[in-house]
Amino acid sequence: MAAQTKPVLHGYFRSSCSWRVRIAFALKGVDYDQVPVNLIKDGGQQLTGQYKALNPMQQVPAVEIDGIILSQSLAVIQYLDETRPGPRLLPADPKKRAQVRMISDLIASGIQPLQNVHILQKIGAEKLQWAQHFIDRGFKALEEILKKTAGKCCVGDEISMADICLVPQVYNAERYKVDVGQYPTIKRLNQTLLEIDAFKVSHPSCQPDTPVDLQA
Amino acid sequence: MAAQTKPVLHGYFRSSCSWRVRIAFALKGVDYDQVPVNLIKDGGQQLTGQYKALNPMQQVPAVEIDGIILSQSLAVIQYLDETRPGPRLLPADPKKRAQVRMISDLIASGIQPLQNVHILQKIGAEKLQWAQHFIDRGFKALEEILKKTAGKCCVGDEISMADICLVPQVYNAERYKVDVGQYPTIKRLNQTLLEIDAFKVSHPSCQPDTPVDLQA
Repeated sequence: MAAQTKPVLHGYFRSSCSWRVRIAFALKGVDYDQVPVNLIKDGGQQLTGQYKALNPMQQVPAVEIDGIILSQSLAVIQYLDETRPGPRLLPADPKKRAQVRMISDLIASGIQPLQNVHILQKIGAEKLQWAQHFIDRGFKALEEILKKTAGKCCVGDEISMADICLVPQVYNAERYKVDVGQYPTIKRLNQTLLEIDAFKVSHPSCQPDTPVDLQA
Repeated sequence: MAAQTKPVLHGYFRSSCSWRVRIAFALKGVDYDQVPVNLIKDGGQQLTGQYKALNPMQQVPAVEIDGIILSQSLAVIQYLDETRPGPRLLPADPKKRAQVRMISDLIASGIQPLQNVHILQKIGAEKLQWAQHFIDRGFKALEEILKKTAGKCCVGDEISMADICLVPQVYNAERYKVDVGQYPTIKRLNQTLLEIDAFKVSHPSCQPDTPVDLQA
């Protein structure tokens, strides 16, 4: 049966969208194979015809699962949640689910696309300033929302897709030298979440394609 | 009961994300009030303190519904789908749901954020070229995906959130003079969908805040 085949994640150790999917697999306890797609080497392996067949957007991640190919990390995460047992990645309550999706989309549509590698290459010399501007704009809004929704996690005390989006975005923020200390709720949640196994094993510092000098 | 109060949509006639939510309300047959937020007038009414309390991201839409405030159009649409009767906005089958979300996110994360008003203001003189670049990049990928998933609609023959995202994005593409004829599947789906009542009544040309010279 196709559903029994191990899923394959085509991703990149440092891609925040790939990390989201790795966290979801880890939280669900789903075993999967990784195929590294190096976004830098050879001018970007995501640009090859072979990869384009998996994801016409030529971005990571792409996931082969249950006989279909999915791209867009939140679509993958919600598919996992709807087809795999294990802890829920979205709460049962519709209002809380909506808040989880609102926070996830604020990051996945409102921040990440504006600071990803392709955009920053187009921006050129001012890329650090550009990335900081959009991460700060998003984090200011996110901090206000999280003040109202957060418990130990982004929405209440249960880990959800919102947390899966938050931690890799904070990693990007630190990479672009944003002062995360300005956002006490974001900072606290990130620290708490980074203690959890699923976030540790999926971290960019310990993937099969992590270069030796970036390994933890 | 809070759930019985009419929802309030804070939006802008020409915002593609506001239009998405209007289509969803119309498909579900949910009566709602509109409060216009003019993104241009007074330097942008979304920047006021009053609006920021509704949506800290200072973007439209924001929706007051069932005693909570939601932003991010896909979160709103999925909340409506999970709490309101009427035609499904996501299919029942998990694989098809995943494809609907993949297409929706390709537009909502992969295209729209890169060509919205705030970004184009930052880009300055080359804004038309910039918008065209990112819409074309997204449409090339979308066309490949839709060739495999589409029937009369983006995924099979049933209207879904993917269609709700597609039509306003094509409207933006035309606004930025992208030749949509290059994408025959996108063009065909858009034409079919524009014949449907829910897409007509929610169109930017006939909203309470549509300026007289832009009315159909």
